[in-house]
Amino acid sequence: MKAGVIGATGYAGAELVRLLSGHPKIDSLALSSVSFEGEHLSDVYPNFQGRIELLLTDAEQVTASANVIFAALPHGITERYAKECTEKGIPFIDLSADFRFGDDEETYSAWYGKTHQHPQLCQYAVYGLPELNRARIQELAAAGKIIVGNPGCYPTSASLGAYPAIAKGIAEDSAAIIVDSISGVTGGGREPARSFHFPECADSVSAYKVGAHRHSPEIARNFAGMAARHNRPAPPVIFTPHLAPMNRGILSTIYIPLAAGWLAGTGGGEPEDTAAKIRAVYSEFYRDEPFVRVLPPWVTAATNRVRQSNYCDISVHLDHSGSTLIICSAIDNMVKGAAGQAVQNMNVIFGYAETSGLEMIPALF
Amino acid sequence: MKAGVIGATGYAGAELVRLLSGHPKIDSLALSSVSFEGEHLSDVYPNFQGRIELLLTDAEQVTASANVIFAALPHGITERYAKECTEKGIPFIDLSADFRFGDDEETYSAWYGKTHQHPQLCQYAVYGLPELNRARIQELAAAGKIIVGNPGCYPTSASLGAYPAIAKGIAEDSAAIIVDSISGVTGGGREPARSFHFPECADSVSAYKVGAHRHSPEIARNFAGMAARHNRPAPPVIFTPHLAPMNRGILSTIYIPLAAGWLAGTGGGEPEDTAAKIRAVYSEFYRDEPFVRVLPPWVTAATNRVRQSNYCDISVHLDHSGSTLIICSAIDNMVKGAAGQAVQNMNVIFGYAETSGLEMIPALF
Amino acid sequence: MKAGVIGATGYAGAELVRLLSGHPKIDSLALSSVSFEGEHLSDVYPNFQGRIELLLTDAEQVTASANVIFAALPHGITERYAKECTEKGIPFIDLSADFRFGDDEETYSAWYGKTHQHPQLCQYAVYGLPELNRARIQELAAAGKIIVGNPGCYPTSASLGAYPAIAKGIAEDSAAIIVDSISGVTGGGREPARSFHFPECADSVSAYKVGAHRHSPEIARNFAGMAARHNRPAPPVIFTPHLAPMNRGILSTIYIPLAAGWLAGTGGGEPEDTAAKIRAVYSEFYRDEPFVRVLPPWVTAATNRVRQSNYCDISVHLDHSGSTLIICSAIDNMVKGAAGQAVQNMNVIFGYAETSGLEMIPALF
Amino acid sequence: MKAGVIGATGYAGAELVRLLSGHPKIDSLALSSVSFEGEHLSDVYPNFQGRIELLLTDAEQVTASANVIFAALPHGITERYAKECTEKGIPFIDLSADFRFGDDEETYSAWYGKTHQHPQLCQYAVYGLPELNRARIQELAAAGKIIVGNPGCYPTSASLGAYPAIAKGIAEDSAAIIVDSISGVTGGGREPARSFHFPECADSVSAYKVGAHRHSPEIARNFAGMAARHNRPAPPVIFTPHLAPMNRGILSTIYIPLAAGWLAGTGGGEPEDTAAKIRAVYSEFYRDEPFVRVLPPWVTAATNRVRQSNYCDISVHLDHSGSTLIICSAIDNMVKGAAGQAVQNMNVIFGYAETSGLEMIPALF
Repeated sequence: MKAGVIGATGYAGAELVRLLSGHPKIDSLALSSVSFEGEHLSDVYPNFQGRIELLLTDAEQVTASANVIFAALPHGITERYAKECTEKGIPFIDLSADFRFGDDEETYSAWYGKTHQHPQLCQYAVYGLPELNRARIQELAAAGKIIVGNPGCYPTSASLGAYPAIAKGIAEDSAAIIVDSISGVTGGGREPARSFHFPECADSVSAYKVGAHRHSPEIARNFAGMAARHNRPAPPVIFTPHLAPMNRGILSTIYIPLAAGWLAGTGGGEPEDTAAKIRAVYSEFYRDEPFVRVLPPWVTAATNRVRQSNYCDISVHLDHSGSTLIICSAIDNMVKGAAGQAVQNMNVIFGYAETSGLEMIPALF
Repeated sequence: MKAGVIGATGYAGAELVRLLSGHPKIDSLALSSVSFEGEHLSDVYPNFQGRIELLLTDAEQVTASANVIFAALPHGITERYAKECTEKGIPFIDLSADFRFGDDEETYSAWYGKTHQHPQLCQYAVYGLPELNRARIQELAAAGKIIVGNPGCYPTSASLGAYPAIAKGIAEDSAAIIVDSISGVTGGGREPARSFHFPECADSVSAYKVGAHRHSPEIARNFAGMAARHNRPAPPVIFTPHLAPMNRGILSTIYIPLAAGWLAGTGGGEPEDTAAKIRAVYSEFYRDEPFVRVLPPWVTAATNRVRQSNYCDISVHLDHSGSTLIICSAIDNMVKGAAGQAVQNMNVIFGYAETSGLEMIPALF
Repeated sequence: MKAGVIGATGYAGAELVRLLSGHPKIDSLALSSVSFEGEHLSDVYPNFQGRIELLLTDAEQVTASANVIFAALPHGITERYAKECTEKGIPFIDLSADFRFGDDEETYSAWYGKTHQHPQLCQYAVYGLPELNRARIQELAAAGKIIVGNPGCYPTSASLGAYPAIAKGIAEDSAAIIVDSISGVTGGGREPARSFHFPECADSVSAYKVGAHRHSPEIARNFAGMAARHNRPAPPVIFTPHLAPMNRGILSTIYIPLAAGWLAGTGGGEPEDTAAKIRAVYSEFYRDEPFVRVLPPWVTAATNRVRQSNYCDISVHLDHSGSTLIICSAIDNMVKGAAGQAVQNMNVIFGYAETSGLEMIPALF
Repeated sequence: MKAGVIGATGYAGAELVRLLSGHPKIDSLALSSVSFEGEHLSDVYPNFQGRIELLLTDAEQVTASANVIFAALPHGITERYAKECTEKGIPFIDLSADFRFGDDEETYSAWYGKTHQHPQLCQYAVYGLPELNRARIQELAAAGKIIVGNPGCYPTSASLGAYPAIAKGIAEDSAAIIVDSISGVTGGGREPARSFHFPECADSVSAYKVGAHRHSPEIARNFAGMAARHNRPAPPVIFTPHLAPMNRGILSTIYIPLAAGWLAGTGGGEPEDTAAKIRAVYSEFYRDEPFVRVLPPWVTAATNRVRQSNYCDISVHLDHSGSTLIICSAIDNMVKGAAGQAVQNMNVIFGYAETSGLEMIPALF
């Protein structure tokens, strides 16, 4: 089994290589890089010294030799590789946004300024959040043509945090859900820029792209899909990303107004009692999910409790008045938020144990 | 003019000493510390070496000799000093929560587990947010008896961020305002604890005391007061604090549903047009405030732009759908959120220029 | 195969548990903790939630059931467990300093203020730096009684960095070797203290215990042992530790005056030529070592290139005048500097592949 | 009095503006920037919003209007402005390396790859470390033509740390002095680069340019000058810079072999006694220096004790064997290491109190 990574020297690509190299089912790797073609991966990342000394080739050589392709390229340029792989029946897992919107060309072009050259490919595309779309991923894989639109980091944390509340009618139907997220700086990628220059972001926090971040429509689409699946209207979504001085991790704090009907159905009680009931719903909902941990009441989700792992930790709280559910959802943005989830999708596609190669216990520090 | 600081070796107390020592109207200082009585301040903080070598005495000696008293003590123990000073006509500026709630003994005791021994003192107490209560501070000062309940750090950033929207009818009357805040670790004080142990909070973010932080009722009380002053109902408040791996700073992201009436009155338009109108209202509202900066549209509030200064930076945004005002409000938690605001209150009380001793341009890094 | 960890809730102990839980030869674990006896490990470290939910027992239960014992206790209290295990023929790997000094009771008591109650145990003790003492570890293991004095973090980085220069006569015999090291804060352990309180060490570096750190005699003893093995006099050692605002990692910069004779023997040349020759010696010296990486000339050792791994990265430099060898040696203080090296020692003892359970590629960020 | 800053938008230039704007003798500023000409300073650094809204012009307009010129440009391009100012009798304070080497054209060109177009300017140049060259600065200022070569950051910390030992014969004449330094990331300037990209340097330390940093010859020249002034031979110097994940600060740990003769003259004693004697020499040596603080024995120099101030803190230690003096010397690299020292030089030139505009007590956090 040979895995190919197109764009192996960006942060997500390199993290993929690191994860894949420890995957028990992967025998070899093929890697490409536009910026560093002809160099060795360990020249670009000395971390790999003595471990992965592979030459970086071009994308064509990667797609020609591998049994599964991961693309970790900028938005808007993976389509040709997706087409080639789909035609050959090679699963294609795309970490860009290009295949996250299905056939909703309008949203995709409005937010990304691109249109698909081969819109027929979208019939093979699935949004790769296994907790939401596992069956569809398996179905496409079985049919022999599959393009996974691997989810964005913020949408992963937001969607897993809100899904049970939306699905189970805990969320008030018409009310806006606010997703307030904080990310580490690796989310900005490997290219130096003033916003990610150490002295500009160390010892400081800031919001950015307020009301205008491209993950807004992705979160909204996910929430709408979850709601639709349970015959509910799509909730409005408000999303604000923040940058914190840390390398990895996303913490999303999600404000979900409680459905009056649901609350009445529980017989009321103190906010902590309601929280306990919702926590039970969440635990049951995710009972069989290997990578979602619903935390006990005395633990609040924190990014350093999922660091370097594929977990999404969720803690369940109520505001003081008892009107609003507050979910804290933590992931490692480079693992469950990118490379780890891509590996998880590969595992689903090939029928491997879903935790294969992803058994990392979160680093303690 | 001699200023006294009771509790000079906690973080807020020591920061006060640093600011007061550069204040042009302060000739000398008297300092006390329970933990380090008999030592020199520069033994506890070598930063002061060669500059402030004062002996740390007890609170009695401080109140006996100074013309203005700052108390930076834990909650629940300043009352006796407030009483003594008030009787002697010495302005008393209290950085604890003890005098922030006026005569609302119920809220104070519910959240702090204390009751006032001398409730009559509350008639001299004023919540020391000069942008809200400057006139009342001057009035009490003129009358000769004043206790300033210096605001909490989170409530300062939240209140300044929301005030114009509440006062000017931009906020929908009945809708909950969500305050989502991120703080640096100095907010936890100088005493070592596991939560603030470097390896436990470095390279990580977390929420804490979700739905249960003591600054919730303080923010709610401020919002209610602002609304009442403009004949509006008190908005419900939801507040979540987060901890980020930085020393100083608070960034509050505040979600305020727009009043349909107000929006209609503006004639509508794109979200960015609405944002511009609200920004203009904010700028006008704070036109004469020396420490509030309403930022231009291309700048988002960040804690490193107010670092080491007494400024509150406010940026005005709208969510993508145009339904909700999103305010980012940044302060240095130890300056405008504690010691700097205390000095500002002293300036108001004594009729000094309000920026006296607080002219620091924010450190660039 | 059952591994026991006494003191499983300190940082080194918990890191051991994390590593051992992924070790292919370890079937089960037994854990003890004085502070948290009766609780579950995942209560103390939520990172383990859903993965290791073991109850924390007492040391007696651990030593009674396991086939290998790791002790991660404070200095001076492991001797009784070492005695018990040795008598039963169970390998005992001690992360404290108690068995690092062999029968040199004088040095041990001078620096640690303790004396051995059972000095006869020292005959079974070996300093557990496999790159130096692999044969002796195997010998004792074969004989059935072994106590490994697992090396300190600073001595590991210093000893691996200087070993080839001392062994191969590159170091001038009589000249002092200066070891200037920088450590992350996890080196200070899990107990909160002012020195490790976030606001006291964030955004700052400092030296500490200058001329007086307990790892000085350990480094000196290692250097002397290396020199003696090659019939050279023990070099004087000067060691200064520093604290930097990061979680993990140690970087040691080691200044080794060049032996005039050795330099003459190379035929001279520019400093970079000499550096290349020394780099070749180092590469050859460590050719078969799985965890030592001698870096190419264009890479300087950095802690983020060994993060979360058991590697020691070594870069070889010369000062501008060509008189002094400068070695940069980087390890992860919690892995190669503590828990990883302990596992490596277990692997040597039991004849497992030395990299078993330690295959982690350094985390990229 | 109008001060001009050429290159006002780099980190050193902007810090200069911040300091000068609070200087009691400076009435106005003129600023230039090649990159941002025509914009306002507050557009580039929102920190200045509402405080310094000056337009950024070109260098010619600055030199035409100001009474003192600070140049914060890259190396090799200030000469023309220095010439113009010198001809007009305007003091010129250059933060680049161009005038740090006097008429030693060979060293300057060897390390910086440049030669002076107007070598006659060097007669007016003085190395601007006031503690070393105050008299010469005053002499040139009085004569009406002065170019200050403002010292590099590392050389400032190294030179102040070693000066008394070299001057007073504490350092062994022929022995190499090792300067091992750790810097914050602002030292790398404002331009984004991979080395200073947050995820590449956060949570990590590394050495760089080992044996090859341009500050090596500057330190060597300073040490030689100090020695020559006291009729001693120039000591060899070995210098290694490191990068730590913090914004500001430099800590230099300096290893100085003790002169046997000096040690004998003291009558010997324990290392701590010798340290006390040396500390007394240092204290006496710097008795009248306003910005050098020799610390008491229980305090070790740390960068967070001089943060945001113009101090150089020095702690005096001996190695365990008593053979080597270990000096820890801490400065804020952007203040005493750059902009603050430049202001100090201006104060000396104009006969202002040397602490004018530099009274900042180090920020506590």
